[in-house]
This record gives sequence, C-alpha cells and structure tokens, in this order.
Amino acid sequence: MVKVIKNSFKIRKRGRKQSQSSGLPPGTMYFFEENSSKLVNVTHTIYDENNVEIIKTHKTPKIELESAKRPIHWVNVDGLTQKEILSDLGKTFKLHRLLLEDVLNTEHRPKIDFYENHLFFTLKALHFNTETYELDTEQVSFVLGSNFILSFQDRSENAFEKIYERFETGRLKSKHADYLMYSLLDFIVDSYFYVVENIEEAIDDLETDLLAGVEANYLTRIQSIRKVLMLLRKTVFPLRESIITLQKTESMLIAADTQKYFQDLLDHVIHVSESIDYQQNTNTSLKELYISMQGNKMNKTIHLLTLVSTVFIPLTFIVGVYGMNFNNMPELESENGYLIVWTVMILLAILLLLLFKRRKWL
Amino acid sequence: MVKVIKNSFKIRKRGRKQSQSSGLPPGTMYFFEENSSKLVNVTHTIYDENNVEIIKTHKTPKIELESAKRPIHWVNVDGLTQKEILSDLGKTFKLHRLLLEDVLNTEHRPKIDFYENHLFFTLKALHFNTETYELDTEQVSFVLGSNFILSFQDRSENAFEKIYERFETGRLKSKHADYLMYSLLDFIVDSYFYVVENIEEAIDDLETDLLAGVEANYLTRIQSIRKVLMLLRKTVFPLRESIITLQKTESMLIAADTQKYFQDLLDHVIHVSESIDYQQNTNTSLKELYISMQGNKMNKTIHLLTLVSTVFIPLTFIVGVYGMNFNNMPELESENGYLIVWTVMILLAILLLLLFKRRKWL
Amino acid sequence: MVKVIKNSFKIRKRGRKQSQSSGLPPGTMYFFEENSSKLVNVTHTIYDENNVEIIKTHKTPKIELESAKRPIHWVNVDGLTQKEILSDLGKTFKLHRLLLEDVLNTEHRPKIDFYENHLFFTLKALHFNTETYELDTEQVSFVLGSNFILSFQDRSENAFEKIYERFETGRLKSKHADYLMYSLLDFIVDSYFYVVENIEEAIDDLETDLLAGVEANYLTRIQSIRKVLMLLRKTVFPLRESIITLQKTESMLIAADTQKYFQDLLDHVIHVSESIDYQQNTNTSLKELYISMQGNKMNKTIHLLTLVSTVFIPLTFIVGVYGMNFNNMPELESENGYLIVWTVMILLAILLLLLFKRRKWL
Amino acid sequence: MVKVIKNSFKIRKRGRKQSQSSGLPPGTMYFFEENSSKLVNVTHTIYDENNVEIIKTHKTPKIELESAKRPIHWVNVDGLTQKEILSDLGKTFKLHRLLLEDVLNTEHRPKIDFYENHLFFTLKALHFNTETYELDTEQVSFVLGSNFILSFQDRSENAFEKIYERFETGRLKSKHADYLMYSLLDFIVDSYFYVVENIEEAIDDLETDLLAGVEANYLTRIQSIRKVLMLLRKTVFPLRESIITLQKTESMLIAADTQKYFQDLLDHVIHVSESIDYQQNTNTSLKELYISMQGNKMNKTIHLLTLVSTVFIPLTFIVGVYGMNFNNMPELESENGYLIVWTVMILLAILLLLLFKRRKWL
Amino acid sequence: MVKVIKNSFKIRKRGRKQSQSSGLPPGTMYFFEENSSKLVNVTHTIYDENNVEIIKTHKTPKIELESAKRPIHWVNVDGLTQKEILSDLGKTFKLHRLLLEDVLNTEHRPKIDFYENHLFFTLKALHFNTETYELDTEQVSFVLGSNFILSFQDRSENAFEKIYERFETGRLKSKHADYLMYSLLDFIVDSYFYVVENIEEAIDDLETDLLAGVEANYLTRIQSIRKVLMLLRKTVFPLRESIITLQKTESMLIAADTQKYFQDLLDHVIHVSESIDYQQNTNTSLKELYISMQGNKMNKTIHLLTLVSTVFIPLTFIVGVYGMNFNNMPELESENGYLIVWTVMILLAILLLLLFKRRKWL
Repeated sequence: MVKVIKNSFKIRKRGRKQSQSSGLPPGTMYFFEENSSKLVNVTHTIYDENNVEIIKTHKTPKIELESAKRPIHWVNVDGLTQKEILSDLGKTFKLHRLLLEDVLNTEHRPKIDFYENHLFFTLKALHFNTETYELDTEQVSFVLGSNFILSFQDRSENAFEKIYERFETGRLKSKHADYLMYSLLDFIVDSYFYVVENIEEAIDDLETDLLAGVEANYLTRIQSIRKVLMLLRKTVFPLRESIITLQKTESMLIAADTQKYFQDLLDHVIHVSESIDYQQNTNTSLKELYISMQGNKMNKTIHLLTLVSTVFIPLTFIVGVYGMNFNNMPELESENGYLIVWTVMILLAILLLLLFKRRKWL
Repeated sequence: MVKVIKNSFKIRKRGRKQSQSSGLPPGTMYFFEENSSKLVNVTHTIYDENNVEIIKTHKTPKIELESAKRPIHWVNVDGLTQKEILSDLGKTFKLHRLLLEDVLNTEHRPKIDFYENHLFFTLKALHFNTETYELDTEQVSFVLGSNFILSFQDRSENAFEKIYERFETGRLKSKHADYLMYSLLDFIVDSYFYVVENIEEAIDDLETDLLAGVEANYLTRIQSIRKVLMLLRKTVFPLRESIITLQKTESMLIAADTQKYFQDLLDHVIHVSESIDYQQNTNTSLKELYISMQGNKMNKTIHLLTLVSTVFIPLTFIVGVYGMNFNNMPELESENGYLIVWTVMILLAILLLLLFKRRKWL
Repeated sequence: MVKVIKNSFKIRKRGRKQSQSSGLPPGTMYFFEENSSKLVNVTHTIYDENNVEIIKTHKTPKIELESAKRPIHWVNVDGLTQKEILSDLGKTFKLHRLLLEDVLNTEHRPKIDFYENHLFFTLKALHFNTETYELDTEQVSFVLGSNFILSFQDRSENAFEKIYERFETGRLKSKHADYLMYSLLDFIVDSYFYVVENIEEAIDDLETDLLAGVEANYLTRIQSIRKVLMLLRKTVFPLRESIITLQKTESMLIAADTQKYFQDLLDHVIHVSESIDYQQNTNTSLKELYISMQGNKMNKTIHLLTLVSTVFIPLTFIVGVYGMNFNNMPELESENGYLIVWTVMILLAILLLLLFKRRKWL
Repeated sequence: MVKVIKNSFKIRKRGRKQSQSSGLPPGTMYFFEENSSKLVNVTHTIYDENNVEIIKTHKTPKIELESAKRPIHWVNVDGLTQKEILSDLGKTFKLHRLLLEDVLNTEHRPKIDFYENHLFFTLKALHFNTETYELDTEQVSFVLGSNFILSFQDRSENAFEKIYERFETGRLKSKHADYLMYSLLDFIVDSYFYVVENIEEAIDDLETDLLAGVEANYLTRIQSIRKVLMLLRKTVFPLRESIITLQKTESMLIAADTQKYFQDLLDHVIHVSESIDYQQNTNTSLKELYISMQGNKMNKTIHLLTLVSTVFIPLTFIVGVYGMNFNNMPELESENGYLIVWTVMILLAILLLLLFKRRKWL
Repeated sequence: MVKVIKNSFKIRKRGRKQSQSSGLPPGTMYFFEENSSKLVNVTHTIYDENNVEIIKTHKTPKIELESAKRPIHWVNVDGLTQKEILSDLGKTFKLHRLLLEDVLNTEHRPKIDFYENHLFFTLKALHFNTETYELDTEQVSFVLGSNFILSFQDRSENAFEKIYERFETGRLKSKHADYLMYSLLDFIVDSYFYVVENIEEAIDDLETDLLAGVEANYLTRIQSIRKVLMLLRKTVFPLRESIITLQKTESMLIAADTQKYFQDLLDHVIHVSESIDYQQNTNTSLKELYISMQGNKMNKTIHLLTLVSTVFIPLTFIVGVYGMNFNNMPELESENGYLIVWTVMILLAILLLLLFKRRKWL
C-alpha cells in the first residue's frame, strides 16, 4: 500500500562529495561531471544605454574587453561540463585559479571573495516543485568586473529568462554591471520567499490537523519540515554574511547608488532568515504539542484500563470464590446466598465508583 | 458541543504573501489590494508654534514645501489601495522608488532606512481584542523629513485620533517634526504593554488552574500563548535594533534634545522585549510542569492498577484451582478446606500489602 | 487539609501595570496610587567633613543649592503618593520631566540615564521574609548630582536606617556624594546575597529529599524556585549592564577613587548573577533528575505488574480449563489428574521465572 | 544496607555565606573564622639571582621594601584567622582596604584587580581525593608588586612545597616576581587537569556500564558528575577572563618575556574549559541515552504484558463460558465438545500469534 | 553472540593524559613515550625554484641556515620518542622551550603561537578506517620560519607522501615556505571532508532505517555518531580560530599572495564546521524522531491491551457469575438462561466496540 503523506517535503540529492577532489593540488579544476560532448548553453549579452545584443552559443564567446565602462558584457554559462569554456573565460577575464576551482565546486557554501579587479559571489538558487514537494538546490556563481559579469549555473535550463525580458522595458540598460548583478541576486532571493511560504502553509496544515485530531503522519511531516528548514538555514545564513561583507568592504565595483539596492536585498535576506527561525520554532512547538497530546492519550487509555480492571478484578475474584467446589460451603446452601453476593458485588462496585469520583478519577 | 477555551489567543491572518510580488523588477509598487474606487482617508495637518490646521480629504493634498523649518506638514494616509496618492506623495517629497515599494509591503519586518533628505521607519502596530482574544498586526510606516512627516497605515481606521487631541493641549505644537514622530512611535509602543499584560494574565490563570488541578485545555492554551509570544518577539526585537540604529546614526533629522525621548522609547521597547523573554520562559516552565504532572498522574494510575492486580490475580488463581472438577481433589472433601483456603488467601493478601508497605508502595 | 509545602517560594504581586499610564503624553507623572493625604516620610540629610544634620519631615525640604561641592544634601523620600513633593524637588534640582515620570514608574527595569548635571539610577531592592518565604521587590531610584543625592522608595519603611548610623562612625562624612550613592547601592546589592543563599538552601533541601526518596511536593517546589530565580535574573542582569555603563561613561559625577568601589560593586553583582545561573542549572538538573526517577519508578511498577500477570494469567487459564463442565473430559476422571495439573502448573511457573532470570528480568 | 555507588563525586561544603558580611561598611575585614590563638603558617622567601632564604614563622615577617627590583620577597600565608597579620601586611605593602576585604572572602569568584603599584589575583585551587571522590575548593589570592608577591591560602597545609624545591634547581631564582606568580598559577591550573581526567574516567565507566547493561545507580552518578562539572565551570571560566584581562591590560608588572608564559597558562585554562564543555555534552548525552534505554525497556515490558494478556484473556473467557452451570448447555453434553473447544482455543491462539507476527509484533 | 552494529563509529583511545606532565616546571620536555632505541623517520627536503633534494634519515639532519630566502629547508619528523632530535632542532632553529613542550604534547588543542622569527601551528589530523569505522586523531605540529618548515607527527607513517610527489609537477618549488605550510594544512583539512561525508552517510542510513521501521540498534548508532561529531567539533572549531588569528596578525612570514590561499583554507574549515553543526542537528532530530516513534509504539501497544481487557474483563465476570455453585440460582434452571447470557454478552461486546468506535478509539 502506498502511503501518501500530506505536504511532506523531499530534498533532491546529487550525491556529489567535496572529498572527491581532496588531495588534488590547490587551484585544480575538478569537474564533478566532465563531458566535453555535452552541449553547454552560453548566452553572451552586450549592452549599453542604447543597445542590447544577445548572442546564444555553445562555445566561449569572443570578447575584446575595453577599458571603457561601456559596453557591458554579460556571459551566462548554463552547465559545468566543459573544461575548455572555463579555461578560455579564465584567460579572457584574468581569473585566479582558486576562483575557477570555486566555480566548479557546486557544493560550496555561499561566500564572497574579492580579487584585484573583480569579485566572486556564489550562492544557492532554490527550485521547488509544488507537485512533488521536492526541493532542489543549484549552485550559482557570479564574477563581477567593472564592465562585465560572468554567471555560472550548474543546471542547463535558462533560469534568467525573465531578466533578459527586462532589458526591453526596464532600467537595466541604463545602469552599470553592479545593478545587473543586484538584479540577478534579487531574482534568486525572491524565489526563497516562495519556498518559505510553502513551508509556512505546510506548518499551518499540520497545526490544523493536530488540533482537529485528524489521523495523519505527524512525525514524518514534522521531520520533513525540519530537514527542509535546516537546509534553508544552511543556504540563507551564509548569504546574509556575504552581503554584509559586500556592503562593508566598499569595493570600487559597487557604485554608491547601487548600495541602496544591496541594502534592500539584505533586508529581504534578513526577512527570509527570520522567517526560517520563526518556522523552526513553530515546528518545534508543534512537535512538542504532538508529543504532549500523545502523552495525554496514553494517560486516558491507561486510565480506562485501570478503571475497568479495578472494578472488575475484585468482583471476578468473588464470583470465583463461589465457583469453588468445596463440600462444606455454607453460603452456597443458604437460601439468599446468591442474592446476597449480588448485593455485595453491586455495593462494592458503587463504592469503588464513588471513591473514584471523589478523587476526580471519573 | 462548542468548547470555549479560556484565554486562548488567536492571531488574525491576512493571507498576504511576500512572494506575490516576487519576480517583479526592483522598485515596482505592488499593491496587495489595489482598488482605486475604495476611499482612502488622508489627514493633512499643518502646524507651527501658534497654529494647527487639520484637513481631512480622500485625495492627495496639495503641498508646497518650503525650505524653512516651519510650518510642519504631517500627512497621514489610512489605507493602501490607491496608486495615485502614493505616486503623488512620492513626487512631492522626492521619495526613492524602493521606499514606496516598502510602504506598500505590509508584511515587512520593522526597519529603518536613511535617505539623503529623509528617513524611513516601518513597524507593526498591535490591535488586541479582549472579547475574542484576537491579535491583529498592522504595518505602519513613517517618512520623516526636516519639516514633514508622512505616515501610512494599512487599515482605514484613524488610530492616531488621540495624537490630534494633543495638538490642543500639549507641547506638540512647539516641537519639531522629530518629536511628532517620537510621539507616534511612543503611542504604538504603549499599545504593546497592553498585549503583554494580557498574556501575563493568561499565563497567571494557567498556572493557577494547573496548580489547583482544574480540568482545562492546558495544551491548547499553552500553545496559543506560545504562538502569540513568538509573534510579539518577531514584532518587537527588530524594532529594538531599528531604534538603536536611529540613535547611533546621529542623523541631522533628530535634534539633540529629542534623542532623550528616543532613549526613553528604547527603554520601553527593551522593557517589552524582556517581558516577552520572561513570559516565554514562564510559559515553557508551565508546559514542563504540566507534562511532569501528567507523568505523575500516569504513575499513580499504573500504581493502582498494579496494586489491585498483584493482590487479586494470585487470589483468583487460587479460587480457580478449587473450581476445577477433578474427581480426586482431597481438599474439596476436607471439612475445613473452605475455611483453610480463605485463611490462606487472607494471609497472602496481608503479606502482599505488608510487602508493599515496606517498599513504600502503599 | 492544609498542605504545607517545604521551602516553597511565593512572590508578592502588586497588580500594577505599565499599561495604566499608556496613551498619556510623554513626561506625564502617573501615580499608581496618588493620595495626597497619606503621609510621606522625607529625610533630609546635610553633611560635610565635620557636621551631619538629619531632618525628618513629611513635606518637601527647603534647600538652597550652592555651587560649592559642600555641604552635600541627601533627600530620601519613602512613599510615592504625593505629587507636590515630586514637583517641588523637580523644580529645586531642575529634573527632566522624563526623569520624574521614571521615578514614579515602580515597574521599571533597572537602568541608568545621564542628564546634563545629574544622573538617574533605578533598581530593585529585594525584601525576603524567611517565615512566609515571600519575596517582595521594591523600586528604588536615585538622582545623583555633584553635591546632592535624591533617593525614592516605593514602600514607606525606612530601609536605609543602617546607613544613617554609618555617618556617626564611618568614612561616609569625609567622602563625596558619589561614595554615598555607592554605599546605598552596595547596601541594596548585599541584600541580594541573602535571597540567593536562601534559594541555595531550598535547592539543597530539595536534592537531599529527592535522593533520600522522601515524599515531598517536588514539582511545586521546583516550580517555585524556578519562578524566584527568573525574577532575580530580571532584577540583577539589567543592573549589571547599568553599572558597566556607569563605569564606561566616565561621568564627571563619579570621582576616580570612587570608581574602585563601583568596580567592587560590579564584582558583587556579577557574583550574584553567576550564582543565579548556577542555581538555575542546578534546579533544572534536579527537575530532570526527578522526572528520570519517576520514569524509573514507573518502569519498576509496570515490571512487577507484567511479572505477576505473565506468570498467573496462563495458570489461571489452565485451572479455568478444568473448571469446565463438559461431560466427556477424561483428565477429570483420571486418578492423578489433579496432581498432574499441579505439577504442570508448578513446572510452567518455574520455567517462566527461569526465563525471566536469564533475561535479567527478575 | 550501605550502597556504594561507583565513582560518585561529592563536593565538600564549608557552609560559609557571603551574606554573613552583608550590611557591613565597604572595606571591612570580615573573618569567616577569626581565631587569634590558631597558629598561622607564614613562609617568607627572599631571593635574588644568587641567594634564596626561606624563613618559616607564625607571625608577620619584618620586611624592609627597597625600591630596587631585587631582592624579591614572597610571603605565603596559610590560614586566614588572624586579623593582625593581615593588617600588618596591609600596612607594609600599602594595600587597599577593598583588597584586604577580598583576600578574606573565601567565597569569591576568580578575578583580577589592578591597583596603582600592585595587582590582585584570586582563584580557586582544587583538591581531589581519589579515595573518597570528594572535591574540595580552596580560595587562593595573590598580590603582585614589582619586587614582592603575597599569597594567601585558606587551608593551613603548605600546598606550594614543590615550588620551594624549584628554587634549588630551576630558573626561578634568575627570574622576576611576575615569573614566580606565573609558576604558582601554573601549579594550581595543572591540578585542574587531574580533576578533569578523573571525571573523564568516571564518564567512560558510566558509558561502558550503560552499554553493557550493568545494573548501576546511573542517575545518581550522572547527577554527581553534572554537579562537579558545574562547579568546575564556575571555577575555570572566570579565571579564563581574568587571565585575558591580565594580558590585555599591559601592566608594567608583567615583563614582555613573561607574557609568553601567561599565554601558555591561558592555553591550559582554555584546554580545561573546553574539556569541561565536552564532558558536559558527553554527560548530557549519556543521561539522554539512559532515559531512552529506560523507555525501550518499558516498551518491551509492556509489549510482553500485552502479548500474554491478548492471547490468554479471550481463552480464559471461553473456558469460563463452559464453566457456567446452566442446566441447558447443549455443548457440554456433546461427545466431542471438549475436544472442539480445545481445537477452537488452539486455533484462536495460533491466529493471534500469526496476526502479531505479521504486524512485526512478535 | 556477537552483535554487529551498522555504521557504529569507534574512537581510538591513546590513554595519554595531560596531567602526567603536571607539576613539572614550565618548559620541561615531557615525552608520553620516550624511547631512544625506537627509530624516528626524519625527512629533510631542501628546495629552491630549480632543485629539490629529499634526504631520508633517522637522525637530526645537519642544517646550515642561511640568511637568504632560498633554499628552503623542510624537516619532517615522524615519531616523537627521541629527546635528542628535538633538542638538536631546538638549538639549530632557536626554538623557545615552551614551543618544544607544546610539540611533545600530543593532546594539545589546535592553536597558533607567534614567536619572534617563526610561528608555531598545531592541529589534529584525522585517520578514518572505513572497515572498522574507527577514527584516530593525530597531533601534527608545524614551525614556520622565513626559509624553513619543521613538521612533527606523532605516528611514524609518512602521511605527506603525496606532497613530496607535488614537488615534481606542481608549483610548490617556485613558491615560498608559507605556501608549503598552506599545502600541508590544506592536505590535512581535505581529509576532514572524508570523515564528515562518512558521518553524513551513516546518518542517512539511520534515517532510512528509522522510517522503514527496520529493527536496528538505533540508540547505539545515534550515540556513536554523536560522539564522533563532538570529537570533530573539538578538532575543527579551534582550528578555525587559529586560521583567523593567522590572517589577522599580518605576520611577515605569510606573503600577501599566499593570504588568498589561507582564505581558501579558512573557507574549507568553515564549510566543515558548518557541516558538523548541520549533522549534529540532524542527529538530534533523528534521536527525537526515534523517541517519538517509540512513544507511538507504546501508545499502540497499551491501546490494544486496553481494548482487549475492557471488552473481555466484564464478559469474564459474567461467565464467572454463572459458574457459581449456589443452590438457588433461578437463571441456571431457566430453559433459555444460557442463550440469554450469550445474547447479553454479545450485545455488551458490540456496545463497547461501538463506544470505542465513536470515540475514535478503534
């Protein structure tokens, strides 16, 4: 029999292990899944105030970086399987070997690193499937220079489609590369709210079921919520630190008026992290409530057992006595023996029940 | 049967979700409930040392901001449904688009933001209904400039009526805009005490009932108190940070002598937050007390069951033996068999009871 | 039947609520108990190196403050019921309206506030009754100027009698106002040790009873200790912060050589607060010990029940079989049937007991 | 019957209370046990690079302090019962009255205080008796000047014998007073390791017994370990702070090259405090393991009870039915009635057992 | 019977105690295992940009330190049993006596110490045996000078074999001594991931078994995981502090471009420590889940017992009544008595079951 558990979250596992690359010299590019024949989607966007050009390819785009602030180049790489593309980008944008190693490490915790002419930012995007209640995390890394952005995604779907649309209508074109990075980060953080609200709903459902006494797989649900919240915590809390570091460092790469936006981003991340705390507390309180309710139920069950036993065990003893086959039992021959025994038993039962009543046992 | 649970708190839900606006470009004004035909109450107060003018309208007031410190303009907007009013105010007071986005986000955590010529402060007002024990939170936002204050409330009731009265009698007129903002914040924080004290009473009742052994829905009450305290915590603790930030920043907008008042406000907020901590601890201690008492009760129940069973089960076995129908049972024919069995049984019972007594079981 | 519970602490409640004054304009003097006819004890002490004059009155003393450092004026007010006295003192010593509001708020958390020419210090005195085990808190406030001290007490008993005695013998006369404030604070903090040690004793008694298996109302005692410790914590921890703030601020009002004494005071407060932590841990550990012991006891009870039941239930079944009235039961007619059944039953019982023994059940 | 509990720690109590001296004016020397006839052991050591002179006496030594750095005077006082000795030392070395008060307070928490020409350091020495498993704490105080050290011990045994030996062989002679104080502190801290390792062993024993199922007084042992660790924590953690304060203050009394040694001392104290944390966690984990194991045991007991009852109660009912004495019971007369009943009962028992098996109950 | 417990971690114990060296004068070299006849493996590597020379010996290598930055000397000592080697190295590299004491203390917590011309770094290497699930810790210490590195290992196996290989191919030769130390530290930290991932797998297995209801020794497994995680925590968290200290100190020994690598190392250590936190939480959650499931199971068992008892105990009483041998029992003689009793009993049973059903007991 398949048991469908309401709102029970699942976490997708990749089976990738950081230790696979351990023992290698530092700065070695380790591919979890190197496959030079698998197509990698590369989107190269070149824009300034007036023009936007979007080139879709499967190879490293040819880029001539100018010293001028414009045009801005955005290279988005969907899929981390081809060594050549990464090396080429590394050479074009003069990336540190440790940076390239970090891009490939899709099990990395969110962090920010500052290099001479660029900065590196890595975080987790969350993909939540409302059908299967499966949560998937994806490593997304950014390299921000004064006039370029590189973005790397582990999965090959183009998650940034909506951002490309904004080039048409929004202020994106007129802003610098730092604003584009903010927009991309904001886009990812926005998706966290979605997950958090789904958890909130699951917790609400859980509480409603619990208080209504609906028979449901509480423990499994509580445990699944707990696990998802722990994963979210691991995803969001280091991100918070990273953004704070970004603000404090006063890098030349982030313009003063973009700082305002990063402050807003930080507000969102703090909001998410407080929601996670709040829901962890709620989940814990529901777990404790459930356990207390179980305790209550057991109390009542044992209470009933004790009541029934305490009343009937002595009575059964009495009827046992007069079931004995001794020759010489005067009560048995007595005319009213049977009646007297019944009277005694009924009185005894009433007595016990009164006793229980007085002790608030009934 | 309807079960009325004493002092069980309820929290009003709005069903608004931050994720509804996710994916939108930053700085987009998202209305949870846009409705241009729904009347919005706008109160425009213009005052200086001598005069106070209060204009009630449903449209954006026409304001000509002068560079002078006086008169001071206070625009209070009750209801967040009309885009036009917000855009107009935004233009008049040169508000940042992120600020306007934050005003509309009624699920925002308390925070403070500094802009070039004004600051933004948002917090939660609490409305507690002593009849229904329902707690409702309302987002209230302020924009403070050197000679103006904007206040935005989600609900359309005029909660600041008492403040308008103070213009008649108090020192409000003679003070600057920063003192008005302090008065409004103080007014909101004062209402927190009311909620906290109601919770305190509910906890006291709970303890009294618990120690008196009154049968009451303890778990539900404890859980409801726990939830309200968690909500309060979420409301009050970020507010504390915000006021500290306000004090530390030494903004030109807050005069030196008003700082004293903000210090007092901070004291109140710290008092509330310490009360919340205290009550969370008390509530936890009551939960644990309740569980321990349940454990004790179960112990006693099982104890009784064991006593009765341990005494009567062997006796019932004995009478069972002499209820057997074997032809050859010499005891049955003996003259004193019946008497002897009774004697044996009574001795056995006494023996067991003595044994229990000695082991402090009785 | 009256149940006397050993060492069970009680906390005296005043029923005063901060919310009673909420909604009032800031700086309003709110009296929890205004009563102009109730006598207020005012003690006015004027002293310098050589002379001490103590004047007891029920009205505001007439004070001409000189700019010189000496003589020093100490005005002690016992009872907070007369508005006039406070307003007069406010005028004489030029006190801020927020300060006067704070003096009257007897539910205030310990804090320190710095004003231009004076500082405000408020804390809780503890009065513990060893007969009734009742703990009462009293708000005590100080205003310290360069050549004056005001002290305000909620209750009308003169708690500082011992300090007046020290003027006769001690160094008090030769020191400045800051040393007097230190002496008063030290006097109050000393009384904390007394409460803490009474709790320590109660916890020791509890542990002794628990390990000796004395039947006592453990849960109520643990809960009462827990509550008292929580109250103490609320009293002592903000005081600690306040003294640290006092030390850090390097106010002109505290002379360099008096700092040494405030450091000593801080040591005492830290000692008390560590004792509170320690005793909270001990109390928790006793609660957990008690619960574990209850669990053990239940285990043993159920164990006995199971042993008796498991041995006798099968035997009772057997004797039940041969109590049946079938015509055709060959065993019944057999000569040795009865003997054989007894043998079988005894063997079965021995077998079960051996089995229990082997599984370490007996 | 005397129950010997394996490795159960005891803590020696002195029954001294800080409150005994409360209410006294600050700086009053309060003796917990003043007794001018009780001999106090005073050891006066005078040393420089070449010579060491050790004078044992029972009175205050006559000391002429020179302004030169050498020779160094070390006065060790074993026993705190004679007022005269303390006053004399106070005069000779110009000690602050608060310092003398602190020396006498043998219930003081570890702390460091800086005076103009000397510093005061107080901590707890631990004496552990491996026979009785009794732990005793002793207050040890130091006063360090540029060319003198005073050490005060509560108990009259000479604990520093080994240090005197080092004057013969070691580098002690060639170093300054600060190095001597380091050596004394190091000597005391080294004794902490001994206690910590005894606790570690007791915890290891506990775990071994627990996993082996040896019947032992687990709760008492866990509780005794818990108490000792809490005491250790109280002893070691403030000491850590004190040493850090000593390092940070950059007092002239500690030479630069001695700092290296104090750093080493701090490392040891941190090591001890981390061990305490670690063992507290381990002890907690064992307590939880024990409780879980008890829960498991109860589960199994109840399981057995339920199995036996569920199988035999229905069978006993059946045999009860055919033990009834109705005249008209056709089954009783039937030839195979008895056989059929047995068959039915056996089938029922098998059925129930199969059912249990399928539900993984057996 | 040998019970093999799945994935149950063991920790290898050395039985070395810090207290063994207590009481010794500071700076004394204490050997846990002094044995001058036991061969110690010493590897002396001399390298510059062009050449690498590796000399394996069992004695102290002769080294003439030049003031030039090159060549770099790396002396690796496997085994800490010969006093002579350590004293010789101490003289050659002018090491402080406290440093030599620390090298020998194989129970040291990870730390960093700065000396005038070199720094000292000690940490734990982890050796995990996947066959026996045994975890072994090894103390590894480093001394880094401007042109030399000393490394000391407790166990005599050459763990750094892979580092020697890198001299052939990698950039090691062209870098300075600080980069070599980074490489060695990185090599050790990489091995932590391996342990952490094995724990992760063990936790995953545990959860799978728990949710599938597989009968397994949960408590022992949870406890073993808990212990290993506590050990890891003790190993990794002080290391984190040490690396942060190294970064902050801006020692001349670490070149600016090597800082980048130490930052990367710190990232790895933070990653490990966050994983430890995460897994401790998961392990706790599984423990709680297990206990709740046990509670559920007990609930169900007692429920069954109560159901069976509550139905059959009254019925057994009834049949007991008609098993009595009174002469005058009219029901017994009645024609339909037997039938009526059966009807009554069946109706009673149905009634009880319906009652249970209605109360959601069935």
